[in-house]
Amino acid sequence: MASRAPLPPTAFTLPAKYYTDPLLYEREVDMFFRQMWVCVGRMGELEDRGSFFARHIAGDSILIVRTSARGEPDSVRAFHNLCRHRGTQLCRDELGQFKGSIQCEYHAWTYDLEGRLVGAPHMDGSAGFRREDFPLLSVRADVWEGFVYVCLADAGPTLQEQLADLPEKFKPWRMGELRRGDGITYDIATNWKLIIQNFSECLHCPNLHPALNKLSHYMSGENEPLRPTYMGGRMDLNDGVTTMSMDGTCPRQFLPGLSPQDQRRVYYYALFPNLLISAHPDYVMAHTLWPLGPDRTRLVCEWHFHPSEMARPGFTADDVREFWDMTNQQDWRVCEMAQAGISSRAYRPGRYSDREDLLHAFDRFIVEAHGGE
Amino acid sequence: MASRAPLPPTAFTLPAKYYTDPLLYEREVDMFFRQMWVCVGRMGELEDRGSFFARHIAGDSILIVRTSARGEPDSVRAFHNLCRHRGTQLCRDELGQFKGSIQCEYHAWTYDLEGRLVGAPHMDGSAGFRREDFPLLSVRADVWEGFVYVCLADAGPTLQEQLADLPEKFKPWRMGELRRGDGITYDIATNWKLIIQNFSECLHCPNLHPALNKLSHYMSGENEPLRPTYMGGRMDLNDGVTTMSMDGTCPRQFLPGLSPQDQRRVYYYALFPNLLISAHPDYVMAHTLWPLGPDRTRLVCEWHFHPSEMARPGFTADDVREFWDMTNQQDWRVCEMAQAGISSRAYRPGRYSDREDLLHAFDRFIVEAHGGE
Amino acid sequence: MASRAPLPPTAFTLPAKYYTDPLLYEREVDMFFRQMWVCVGRMGELEDRGSFFARHIAGDSILIVRTSARGEPDSVRAFHNLCRHRGTQLCRDELGQFKGSIQCEYHAWTYDLEGRLVGAPHMDGSAGFRREDFPLLSVRADVWEGFVYVCLADAGPTLQEQLADLPEKFKPWRMGELRRGDGITYDIATNWKLIIQNFSECLHCPNLHPALNKLSHYMSGENEPLRPTYMGGRMDLNDGVTTMSMDGTCPRQFLPGLSPQDQRRVYYYALFPNLLISAHPDYVMAHTLWPLGPDRTRLVCEWHFHPSEMARPGFTADDVREFWDMTNQQDWRVCEMAQAGISSRAYRPGRYSDREDLLHAFDRFIVEAHGGE
Repeated sequence: MASRAPLPPTAFTLPAKYYTDPLLYEREVDMFFRQMWVCVGRMGELEDRGSFFARHIAGDSILIVRTSARGEPDSVRAFHNLCRHRGTQLCRDELGQFKGSIQCEYHAWTYDLEGRLVGAPHMDGSAGFRREDFPLLSVRADVWEGFVYVCLADAGPTLQEQLADLPEKFKPWRMGELRRGDGITYDIATNWKLIIQNFSECLHCPNLHPALNKLSHYMSGENEPLRPTYMGGRMDLNDGVTTMSMDGTCPRQFLPGLSPQDQRRVYYYALFPNLLISAHPDYVMAHTLWPLGPDRTRLVCEWHFHPSEMARPGFTADDVREFWDMTNQQDWRVCEMAQAGISSRAYRPGRYSDREDLLHAFDRFIVEAHGGE
Repeated sequence: MASRAPLPPTAFTLPAKYYTDPLLYEREVDMFFRQMWVCVGRMGELEDRGSFFARHIAGDSILIVRTSARGEPDSVRAFHNLCRHRGTQLCRDELGQFKGSIQCEYHAWTYDLEGRLVGAPHMDGSAGFRREDFPLLSVRADVWEGFVYVCLADAGPTLQEQLADLPEKFKPWRMGELRRGDGITYDIATNWKLIIQNFSECLHCPNLHPALNKLSHYMSGENEPLRPTYMGGRMDLNDGVTTMSMDGTCPRQFLPGLSPQDQRRVYYYALFPNLLISAHPDYVMAHTLWPLGPDRTRLVCEWHFHPSEMARPGFTADDVREFWDMTNQQDWRVCEMAQAGISSRAYRPGRYSDREDLLHAFDRFIVEAHGGE
Repeated sequence: MASRAPLPPTAFTLPAKYYTDPLLYEREVDMFFRQMWVCVGRMGELEDRGSFFARHIAGDSILIVRTSARGEPDSVRAFHNLCRHRGTQLCRDELGQFKGSIQCEYHAWTYDLEGRLVGAPHMDGSAGFRREDFPLLSVRADVWEGFVYVCLADAGPTLQEQLADLPEKFKPWRMGELRRGDGITYDIATNWKLIIQNFSECLHCPNLHPALNKLSHYMSGENEPLRPTYMGGRMDLNDGVTTMSMDGTCPRQFLPGLSPQDQRRVYYYALFPNLLISAHPDYVMAHTLWPLGPDRTRLVCEWHFHPSEMARPGFTADDVREFWDMTNQQDWRVCEMAQAGISSRAYRPGRYSDREDLLHAFDRFIVEAHGGE
């Protein structure tokens, strides 16, 4: 890798408040999780018209419902999970199937899958009551390459605008075709930004991830400059290594359409605010981050494979799961130790090395989002 | 049932703050649970002179002690559960029997059952110390038809004044004679007012309680207008149904003294702030509510029967318990879903139907208690 | 015991806020646990150069490391438990052994046992970076008679100054030679000061500790006046009793060097802020207190014996453990009941007896530390 531009002597880590202050945390929830498009899952979880899952986003419970029939193009709607009669939650299940309509258990108000109120017992005689005034509260929803996104803000950029040139960049992986092979959910006692920072440098790899460092050398990386809505880079596989797995060999075909160069690399991209994509020659790992507090984050890690590989007899994701679960746990441990240390009254910002350039840029981005130091 | 007066087009549910704001909750605890008489249990739990139970009311631990001998007329005293020496709690048990006096474990200060300090070791030489200056801190206590009440406020209406015309209304049930047959305690993740509201309309019955709706039709109800300290109404039993139980038949004699009309009805009354009475032909169900936070309430549900029935061989409360536990759990589920939905940032007040007239009146009463919107 | 000076009629217990107010609690943590020397353990836990234990003091995680080799004079260093690079906690273990240096798991920054940064990968090319600018953050540490102390404040009195004349007073027990025989950790739902107050009077003994009262009569005590950094007194063993144990007999030799008079007494001293010493003829009991909140305290109780006794066949600490665990649990129970009662809205200060003179003096000391009522 080409030598990186040296960081200035002012390249210090952030003050503790960015990781511990509840008000600052709430502001980040608002700026990044209410104003931006948030990745909530995969289209593969929604198989039929009426299939839904529920997500807690920035404190709100949101129902994401598929409105297109099986086999038809992706189409989803998202609604706040509450009835317009007396505010009752419509659904307590995380995942399920509506049968053509959504009915409140309490007094049987009923909505169609577009959110229109189609039944409201004993309301018809009420003076001035009109069903069209009480639809479900709708939330913007969209889909990119199988990743379902919602945006709690009514106005602002479209998903395409937020993704910028990423759709073009990731085209070769044809991620929309991939299907979930396995996944693990982690609860991590750390600020969400420390996970993004951990994801964005490999200086820690030789000490923390000796197994990973044998597959892909930490000095092999190359980063793009930080973009307004994402940052990322790539690392090369070592000679003789064919993918990131326990033994570095790949029991699967490479994803169709990858160039020989991309077959020798792993791409790591953090799509703000909450999707971390690691694109391998034969699978894509996707982390979705869910901040639960200044010092708590839930992370859903999933591995997506090509359906033709998954259909093969003897297909397994175990080698990938074993390797990344080990690596993940090493990472979450130090993320939790970083949160603990930074939370101490004694903490003071420390000096970044030149190999932590993306972190420094990300910190600047965060500080600016908050309106300066 | 006669048609009800239509509600105005302004009959909307309350803003979320009434169910979620901690300060507003504290104000309600003060207004309703410190200033009003609160139902704390039944005289049947206190069998002898010195029998006591402890209750947490509005954050205070209160000891309620029977001071009359077995067989004598009901007489109770209530005290704050702390010693006047160094403030030590006098008792950690929920229920028990004092042997003629109440002694602090720490330094053996001793009080009689009227709360007078009768022993204080090593204090007699202390300049100016007089035992009569350090009695237990007393709290008003009274009894109505076996329901024990206390009032944390020293001044204000008597229990009789708070009960208004209810003693006359409930006279036929002779509730003072009834004994507890069974009971269940529920912890419910909802605001205390949502339970009272759930109790005060049956519009939800056809959808939520199909079994109940077969015994007593939801349109059969008739409400009294809201009174300053209570609200309630009645519903009729369907033809062929003799009481509210799993199969609608009644294996017990009706309560003595009920008119033929009352033998065909169930009366539902919410006695503010915390007693919900459901009077059936052969038993009385009593809920007592204990707010634990803006979004948490403990509810003690008990069924009281006539002692002559309870003395019969083969007496059982199981049919009643089974029916009401099923119905209760259906109700608490939607109360929790209502709390969850109302707590969402997206919640906005919704329109009441004409069959929710008591709720609308209760909301107005609550808003006025808070001094207006 | 000589009669004590009577307390004035104004000798009332403290207002509730001293036991319940979070801000007042934080101020005490600062005044007493950040500004004063705090006892953190015994030198016996640190056997070799590089042995360490970690303690949470006033919210900070501190590593206490032995820097002298086995057999050499006591020498310890204390450091904030965080790396100067990105603030990561250096160590999650409570107890362990560093192998000559302290290395951060995350990016392998490495410090020697004096806290000097001796390794920082990829930092050498960074403009203006100097290792000597990033040592571990050091905390003052010292040792008295085997008790290890640290002080989070950089300036202020030395440990010797804080201990005042106690080293002279406790010389006969030669506590530096003693070794831990056994210990129990208790979590107690009470304010730390209520434990000190409980420790400082025996008026509660006849009622609460009948077994203890048979060994050492509660009227036998004599107190010293309160000193700026400690308070204490003594009690006599009853005739026929040779130590405080289940049956009052002593299966061990007395500690060498004690006068015949000291062999008949137990000395109880509270060394502010967190060490309670009970010196018996044949062992020393030491409580260390760790405030966890206004109403929560962790207490480590340990019994220290002479190594020559511990080396004898058949040595046991069981009689001591059994007696004091019983007595401790009686005390913690009433400390928790006192906290509960004082936390009630109904609590008001009560009158002290003349036998609670140290508590009254301690209260005055606390109030003055807070700057008056």
